[in-house]
Amino acid sequence: MSQTLCTDDVRAMIAEFFGQQMPFHHLIGLEIVHYNKDSVELRIEMKPALVGNTVHGILHGGVTATMLDVAGGMIVFAEVLENMAEVTQESVFKRLQNLGTIDLRIDYLRPGRGTEFIATATVIRAGNKVAVARMELHNEQGDHIAFGTGTYMVG
Amino acid sequence: MSQTLCTDDVRAMIAEFFGQQMPFHHLIGLEIVHYNKDSVELRIEMKPALVGNTVHGILHGGVTATMLDVAGGMIVFAEVLENMAEVTQESVFKRLQNLGTIDLRIDYLRPGRGTEFIATATVIRAGNKVAVARMELHNEQGDHIAFGTGTYMVG
Amino acid sequence: MSQTLCTDDVRAMIAEFFGQQMPFHHLIGLEIVHYNKDSVELRIEMKPALVGNTVHGILHGGVTATMLDVAGGMIVFAEVLENMAEVTQESVFKRLQNLGTIDLRIDYLRPGRGTEFIATATVIRAGNKVAVARMELHNEQGDHIAFGTGTYMVG
Amino acid sequence: MSQTLCTDDVRAMIAEFFGQQMPFHHLIGLEIVHYNKDSVELRIEMKPALVGNTVHGILHGGVTATMLDVAGGMIVFAEVLENMAEVTQESVFKRLQNLGTIDLRIDYLRPGRGTEFIATATVIRAGNKVAVARMELHNEQGDHIAFGTGTYMVG
Repeated sequence: MSQTLCTDDVRAMIAEFFGQQMPFHHLIGLEIVHYNKDSVELRIEMKPALVGNTVHGILHGGVTATMLDVAGGMIVFAEVLENMAEVTQESVFKRLQNLGTIDLRIDYLRPGRGTEFIATATVIRAGNKVAVARMELHNEQGDHIAFGTGTYMVG
Repeated sequence: MSQTLCTDDVRAMIAEFFGQQMPFHHLIGLEIVHYNKDSVELRIEMKPALVGNTVHGILHGGVTATMLDVAGGMIVFAEVLENMAEVTQESVFKRLQNLGTIDLRIDYLRPGRGTEFIATATVIRAGNKVAVARMELHNEQGDHIAFGTGTYMVG
Repeated sequence: MSQTLCTDDVRAMIAEFFGQQMPFHHLIGLEIVHYNKDSVELRIEMKPALVGNTVHGILHGGVTATMLDVAGGMIVFAEVLENMAEVTQESVFKRLQNLGTIDLRIDYLRPGRGTEFIATATVIRAGNKVAVARMELHNEQGDHIAFGTGTYMVG
Repeated sequence: MSQTLCTDDVRAMIAEFFGQQMPFHHLIGLEIVHYNKDSVELRIEMKPALVGNTVHGILHGGVTATMLDVAGGMIVFAEVLENMAEVTQESVFKRLQNLGTIDLRIDYLRPGRGTEFIATATVIRAGNKVAVARMELHNEQGDHIAFGTGTYMVG
């Protein structure tokens, strides 16, 4: 029989998985700082391999896109979790399998200068099938680097 | 005195730079297959580190975003080059410094399954200050993985 | 008992409804030129009330957005229709009620000059719950005025 | 000789023009509630001609797109005005002529039910050539109907 899980535990497992075991996240050094019911924070430390402009030493826009996409996906999934009738390893795994980005928009506001970057996200449209999130990227000084908007398949 | 360059040579240098020396491109294994006046082709070989979904072994959406962003930037810059009054190392470098993504939209069409991925791009709005490109990502079998649309600062 | 309908007839009814009875479409003069299984064409005749820039006499960007949104919604619904197990007035009406735009991107390529404008659309991602379309707006001379991309709820 | 104008007066003239004399705004009943240095508020009263879904009586998505596009354009122009070296009728008119939407994204959050709709906007990226704004549409009860993001040519 499948055991009912607490959503806090499920999010902790997902955060551990996304932060430690996802190959591409490992490659770029993406960490999950926290993952709560209604907030998520992702962090990346600047390092030479992430540079997109060697003259100015700024973060590659693809890293920005990656962080915003992941932050959005995690926050919409947190909402999904809270609305699941039954939270078991099987049911969570199945929903997580269905999670996918349909479309993503990134607005680059200023060059990605800094020693670390923080992505956050918030759900703007919740749904059983589709959800939409808005995301933000800041550097360690609080400078706003980019906005994101993502539409995700969740059902 | 600054030497006037042929735009074919300039594109070859840029392709060499983007493909060999850009740290983040090196990290993910991004290659420039060709870079012509009105077409560009980027290629990436699938490898475990680029996986975003370990169950299905599909390409991380952040890699897709990166490839499309770079393809779009390169194609709008090819257009800029053709319209420069004077093509010298200094003038090209200056324009390249000003090249930046303002916003990017990615439409993910199907899961990124494959052994290699090819990004192409085309200019849909040329301009002296701002240009817009549409991009596509296919796998080695010709399956259409994603569409992109990017607005770039070029002046 | 509910009668099974032919999808050609259903599309004809929808085209008649969208072109003749939708209040806002009537206000702006939107016509449905044709509505087939895999293509749709919308038309609007330029008139003073649609002008957004009185100096240049060009089409208001909101009219462009409207035409592209409607064209995209109609083409994804044509796809839905073809995949319905049972096509009856009730089932079509129910699916039509669920049709809604989730997000829309418009790329304005050049000023909307012309005596008439034609919107067309094509499905780029079909689905049972969500579909994505790309749309185009041209004037009567074939000048390409705008591109659109729309994500629609269809289930 | 051209007279230097106060930016408050210029905004008042623009608001008057956009609210009273723009043909398409007149057609749909768009009003400018206020237009300040760092905020703008547009209003539309619901009326049968603006309905996009006759069953539910909700606002057509094209009206939403129109309001958000105009709100974004006005707020980025307010920023332009504040940064103009010399504010004369000629210089303002010239800049206003150059104002144009490059791309627009609309996220429809919930059906447009209500008796009136309010659009607001804020600049997220200011610039001499290109500016980006985020916009919101609410109904008279404060329900959040839609988000918008627009990239505008301003120089």
